[in-house]
Amino acid sequence: MEPNHEEPKLEAFDKILVALENEQIDLFRSEFLELHPYDQASIFDEVTEDRRQQIYTYLSPQEMSEVIEHFDFEDVSPLIIEMNPTYAAHILAEMSTDDAVDIMNNFEKDQVASYLTLMHKEEADEIKDLLHYEEKTAGSIMTTEFVVVNKNMTIREAMVHLRTQAPDAETIYYVFVVDEDKHLVGVISLRDLIISEEDWLVSDIMSDRVVYVSVGEDQEVIAKIMRDYDFLALPVVDFKKHILGIITVDDIMDVMEEEASDDYSKLAAVSDMDRADLTPFDAAKKRLPWLIILLFLGMVTASLIGRFENTLDQVAILAVFIPVIAGMAGNTGTQALAVTVRGIATGDISKEGKLKRLKKETLTGLITGITCGLIITGVVMLWFGHVYLGMIVGFSILCSLIVATIAGSFLPLLMHKMNIDPAVASGPFITTINDIISIIIYFGTATIFMDLLI
Amino acid sequence: MEPNHEEPKLEAFDKILVALENEQIDLFRSEFLELHPYDQASIFDEVTEDRRQQIYTYLSPQEMSEVIEHFDFEDVSPLIIEMNPTYAAHILAEMSTDDAVDIMNNFEKDQVASYLTLMHKEEADEIKDLLHYEEKTAGSIMTTEFVVVNKNMTIREAMVHLRTQAPDAETIYYVFVVDEDKHLVGVISLRDLIISEEDWLVSDIMSDRVVYVSVGEDQEVIAKIMRDYDFLALPVVDFKKHILGIITVDDIMDVMEEEASDDYSKLAAVSDMDRADLTPFDAAKKRLPWLIILLFLGMVTASLIGRFENTLDQVAILAVFIPVIAGMAGNTGTQALAVTVRGIATGDISKEGKLKRLKKETLTGLITGITCGLIITGVVMLWFGHVYLGMIVGFSILCSLIVATIAGSFLPLLMHKMNIDPAVASGPFITTINDIISIIIYFGTATIFMDLLI
Repeated sequence: MEPNHEEPKLEAFDKILVALENEQIDLFRSEFLELHPYDQASIFDEVTEDRRQQIYTYLSPQEMSEVIEHFDFEDVSPLIIEMNPTYAAHILAEMSTDDAVDIMNNFEKDQVASYLTLMHKEEADEIKDLLHYEEKTAGSIMTTEFVVVNKNMTIREAMVHLRTQAPDAETIYYVFVVDEDKHLVGVISLRDLIISEEDWLVSDIMSDRVVYVSVGEDQEVIAKIMRDYDFLALPVVDFKKHILGIITVDDIMDVMEEEASDDYSKLAAVSDMDRADLTPFDAAKKRLPWLIILLFLGMVTASLIGRFENTLDQVAILAVFIPVIAGMAGNTGTQALAVTVRGIATGDISKEGKLKRLKKETLTGLITGITCGLIITGVVMLWFGHVYLGMIVGFSILCSLIVATIAGSFLPLLMHKMNIDPAVASGPFITTINDIISIIIYFGTATIFMDLLI
Repeated sequence: MEPNHEEPKLEAFDKILVALENEQIDLFRSEFLELHPYDQASIFDEVTEDRRQQIYTYLSPQEMSEVIEHFDFEDVSPLIIEMNPTYAAHILAEMSTDDAVDIMNNFEKDQVASYLTLMHKEEADEIKDLLHYEEKTAGSIMTTEFVVVNKNMTIREAMVHLRTQAPDAETIYYVFVVDEDKHLVGVISLRDLIISEEDWLVSDIMSDRVVYVSVGEDQEVIAKIMRDYDFLALPVVDFKKHILGIITVDDIMDVMEEEASDDYSKLAAVSDMDRADLTPFDAAKKRLPWLIILLFLGMVTASLIGRFENTLDQVAILAVFIPVIAGMAGNTGTQALAVTVRGIATGDISKEGKLKRLKKETLTGLITGITCGLIITGVVMLWFGHVYLGMIVGFSILCSLIVATIAGSFLPLLMHKMNIDPAVASGPFITTINDIISIIIYFGTATIFMDLLI
């Protein structure tokens, strides 16, 4: 079901396209500027470059900057480049500093330099400051447009200050409080400000247990803090607790979406840049590196089975159960992997300790192994009519499931310990490892009990 | 790296635990109530039931309700049940209605009824209203504590109204505007209110293009709207556009986290309730249904290979390449699946059309298939020294990869069309289907060209 606010929007879209066609600049501006910037941005998705060039001449850099802020950052670069450079530089200067930085991080060094030259020095300096910060840290997602008040102000003074700052600030719903030396000492919500008496002091009503993050903090940690504490904004400080910027909840929602896509893509061994709108050639280029690695790992499995060619020659029916044993090992391994990766991400695991986690997974593997082992033994005996083969297949499933469960939980824990993102331990990767382990178990067992099979 | 606001927190934790031990109620209250509710909640994770019972007697239901709101909803039920029922009912009545409803949705019908009886009629009625709404819809996540103003009020009147409502409302940063018949006609931000002249009318400064959702809307769609438009709150209306409630950004962050976990878990075929903190028996119980289904699908693969026993008896070395062919088909299928599921979730795919998507994936499969097919043909010829076998394995990989890529993208598209959540087309499931397809291709080809192999 589509949200029911779509219909009036589509009507407005049509009017705007007609106005463009007839070059009615006033009609275009009145209809276009009524729309929410996100809807304005979606119009750009649907028109040709000629129309876009026309729109650039109809809108001021300031108006255009709001549209640009509602694009995905990867999609913006081609738009910026197709614009007149001076116009583009104006737009970048008008945007929230954090968004401008995100966009410019996609450009080559000389492009960045030329846009910075075309801006006023003040705005260029603000952007330059933020360009230093590493991607995916607090510094790279914070904005420097925030409101601070001094702790010795009265509520009346604070409100006056707030009113003058409101048009430029990214949010005014949290106001951060500093002392004379610009140290962050408290926070006060606009809600508290408007229900307080005008001649009280800011320091009387502020909360002095303010939660903050350091400028190098990882964005995933910040997302967790903002979600857990239900904050709308979070201050970012340097090592001396001077406030450098704030992170707002809208940026954090983008981070959450990005991190979720990221983890999901890694489990499937696709690059997070492998999006549905790529051309087949680009998509193949993104996927092939993974596939070729997995292909060579698969050849290792093949040459392993090759070593048991003698066994196979004598009892060809052994081959029949290779996929089910390898498959089951792969499946349990992926399950254990996913639970562990999520547990690390949500923090559940650090609470209870890693060794305890491994013990739990071993026991889980034992239970699922015994259950699946018994079922398959019965099925092979009844369906295929081989008693001993059934027992060997059942025993192999039991052992494979235990080992695969342990491997699936151990690998991400190890990676986490080594400060590698555990989500990189992708599904297909763990599956291939478990293929190899389970086949050694299966053919090993079968070779030992060969006498029973012939 | 841990966020650097942890240290003062840990100090406070210690003081609180000592105060509990010494039964110093005043010290406990002064330290505990200074903490953010999220930190208060984490103390409950660390103490025994006796200490918790002690805390319940130290805190009023109203104070306790704020702590409870910062728990995961699944973790709250045991706490509520261990409390004195009257105290628990008070807490549920004091909470935001939406959170109370989320908690009570985990209870049995007779438990819900008994808590409702212990509340004041007014609060019980509010909760009863929301309990009707289906899970994961706007109705189930909205709160009924919001502020509306009439469009004919002056800014001064609106601010007075706002100040009186502020303590109870979930947010006051967006104020929704209604006409005489309580229809939603506009929205106004607190930012606009405080920078406007006091004798202007609300209708003069409100935005009348207000985005809203209907009460039955899916929570995932709502999360996308709030993220795209950067809203802090979104109004929920009935079919006559009367405002029923609002959804705030903090609830949406929880929804995003839940949906992300959900999709991730489904790709790995684990239930989303399979969390790292379950006992091994419960974890096994959650995973076994999937494993047993996959086990029987695996037996289908086995019996398929069984049909080729003749072929296998003559050329046992064919068995060696079963895992690599099946594995590669599984891997490409999972990649195509993940890209398609994400594409549906982000809306990229509805834009470009499903047929176009399938064509693209087919071409991607062709490119990856040719590449991997050529590589493996070369490897088998050189490494294993079998020319014709190499060609048969290479050809099988080529065909399997094309079919697997199409299957991986077709299945979620089909499910989406049938209104089934496409994420249910889990990784192991598509992998097993692709196992079967690839093995038919491999043994079919090998049987046809048998003469070349012997």
